[in-house]
Amino acid sequence: MEDDEVSNKQVVLKNYVIGSPKESDMEVRIIKMRLKISEGSNAVLVKNLYLSCDPYMAGRMRNPDSDHRSFVESFLPGSPIMGYGVAKVLESGHPNFKKGDLVWGITGWEEYSFITSPEALFKIEHSDVPLSYYTGILGMPGMTAYVGFYHICSPKKGERVFVSAASGAVGQLVGQFAKLMDCYVVGTAGSKAKVDLLKTKFGFDEAFNYKEEQDLEMALKRHFPEGIDIYFENVGGKMLDAVLLNSRIHSRIAVCGLISQYNLKQPESVHNLFSLIMKRIRVEGFIVSDHYDQYPKFLDMVLPLIREGKVTYVEDVAEGLERAPAALVGLFSGHNVGKQVVVVARE
Amino acid sequence: MEDDEVSNKQVVLKNYVIGSPKESDMEVRIIKMRLKISEGSNAVLVKNLYLSCDPYMAGRMRNPDSDHRSFVESFLPGSPIMGYGVAKVLESGHPNFKKGDLVWGITGWEEYSFITSPEALFKIEHSDVPLSYYTGILGMPGMTAYVGFYHICSPKKGERVFVSAASGAVGQLVGQFAKLMDCYVVGTAGSKAKVDLLKTKFGFDEAFNYKEEQDLEMALKRHFPEGIDIYFENVGGKMLDAVLLNSRIHSRIAVCGLISQYNLKQPESVHNLFSLIMKRIRVEGFIVSDHYDQYPKFLDMVLPLIREGKVTYVEDVAEGLERAPAALVGLFSGHNVGKQVVVVARE
Repeated sequence: MEDDEVSNKQVVLKNYVIGSPKESDMEVRIIKMRLKISEGSNAVLVKNLYLSCDPYMAGRMRNPDSDHRSFVESFLPGSPIMGYGVAKVLESGHPNFKKGDLVWGITGWEEYSFITSPEALFKIEHSDVPLSYYTGILGMPGMTAYVGFYHICSPKKGERVFVSAASGAVGQLVGQFAKLMDCYVVGTAGSKAKVDLLKTKFGFDEAFNYKEEQDLEMALKRHFPEGIDIYFENVGGKMLDAVLLNSRIHSRIAVCGLISQYNLKQPESVHNLFSLIMKRIRVEGFIVSDHYDQYPKFLDMVLPLIREGKVTYVEDVAEGLERAPAALVGLFSGHNVGKQVVVVARE
Repeated sequence: MEDDEVSNKQVVLKNYVIGSPKESDMEVRIIKMRLKISEGSNAVLVKNLYLSCDPYMAGRMRNPDSDHRSFVESFLPGSPIMGYGVAKVLESGHPNFKKGDLVWGITGWEEYSFITSPEALFKIEHSDVPLSYYTGILGMPGMTAYVGFYHICSPKKGERVFVSAASGAVGQLVGQFAKLMDCYVVGTAGSKAKVDLLKTKFGFDEAFNYKEEQDLEMALKRHFPEGIDIYFENVGGKMLDAVLLNSRIHSRIAVCGLISQYNLKQPESVHNLFSLIMKRIRVEGFIVSDHYDQYPKFLDMVLPLIREGKVTYVEDVAEGLERAPAALVGLFSGHNVGKQVVVVARE
């Protein structure tokens, strides 16, 4: 083993996934690598600290030829999983970064990564908040909540807001943003613990466990006797159908994710599109990466809210890269409570 | 029979309709009435000239308790069908109208109607164009095309536009508006005659008969190898699913009508909502009556286009109130070619 050679633990996709990802679709392996950037390269070499488990990643695990449902490139079987993470620069061939910088952005599920397009990384300028927040409230999920709620939902003070997957990485923030606008906010989640969290920790006005409802249409009618102005859609399927029947005139639906649908062979169908006309509903899908130019503005808003304790953020932390496959797989059965993070190293 | 008593032929809804309306759901009857407004009433008494057959009317024929799918009040069984029409004022209790005025708006399917909320009527100021046009290009369908295309679709010069039910009252105009913006326009309709009309009369770049396509997704891919920017949705169901798979990034779908779905017990399902996220699609339903404040602006635009022959309008004219039930029913099997009008009287 040469001087600058280290072992690099990696989580690798074994084969394209069919249906829901399983732990056995991934394997942990150790390779040897040199912690050195080649002469003339503008890559940066980073040590990964925190990795983010996000639902969209299931789409990247499927065969690109078989699937209409992913908006990003598939992973390469035999190579490490890629995803958002927080990392520390060990060496930089790029003028924007230097040794010791903290960054967040797309990195590998491994201890050390070469990042060959470092332009896409965000430099972390504020480290008085937990670093792991840059996988969540201060990273992609935070921006998703911000863009989705403030831009796509066009919220007005006091409106009636419904959030699905409400205790998740994005949902918990959407609810809090809505409360800051004096909205009436109801969330749904899949366990009693999560429902309690919504009410006690995130300040939702009401919350319910969708798994305990026989009839989602009636559940929504109970919580929104006057209907829903804004639906922040994270799940799809039956919930969307129920919302369509409980929508108010000129309501808006921001389609952020459809987690109930990602791993179905045939997505569930939606029937109640008549409501789109009857209620003049606007439904809009969005992808956060189209909106990263607004990241500085977002930070200006959300950093003070964090520092003043006006928003809170719950993370579900898995310790160690070995636990990353289980953490990712757990997203699709609702195992996580709050934002699912994997700690690779704390520094 | 008193001096001012006349016979008034009416088309009456016999019972609430289940499924698709049939001719036997309506009956033609003759009643006696006095052509006189009661003292102090602000109603107007009109002689109906042209009546409009519109798909949304099916919703008004169903039992309001049984149906999620109508955005307007149901008709009353035993009473005349109501709908848009062109009429001549015989007597007026309302300061805005006087004897001899021509108006368009909601009236009864009968020879003479008392209109008790005449504020909702539009006075016809321009009669150098065919009067029947006020049931179509210059009336509700024209406004629908205008609002739906210019406001809901946010069109840009040269975009790729797809219109379903393209030879209908609204579709034929949407296509022509899009051509005026140098868009590439493809329409679909349900017969060879209609498809020919789209290309030869309305200037669509391409058109196809959806009934002859095994695979709508492939048909759209053929006509839009680079995808669709704007879909003007008049039909729903499978066509919407196929469009979702052929949409371009940041495309828009104006949901104007879902004629394939109005009369189904259980609406067809739509599966491909993933595309909403992947392609950042905006889908928006609208109802023209929310936008009637823009009618004067619309007239300013469209009247010169008609007079200069820059837009054209095809009507399918049924002669006589007796033919009105068949004309209405025919909409749902695509029997009409162009805007379906019923002539009650020419003056």
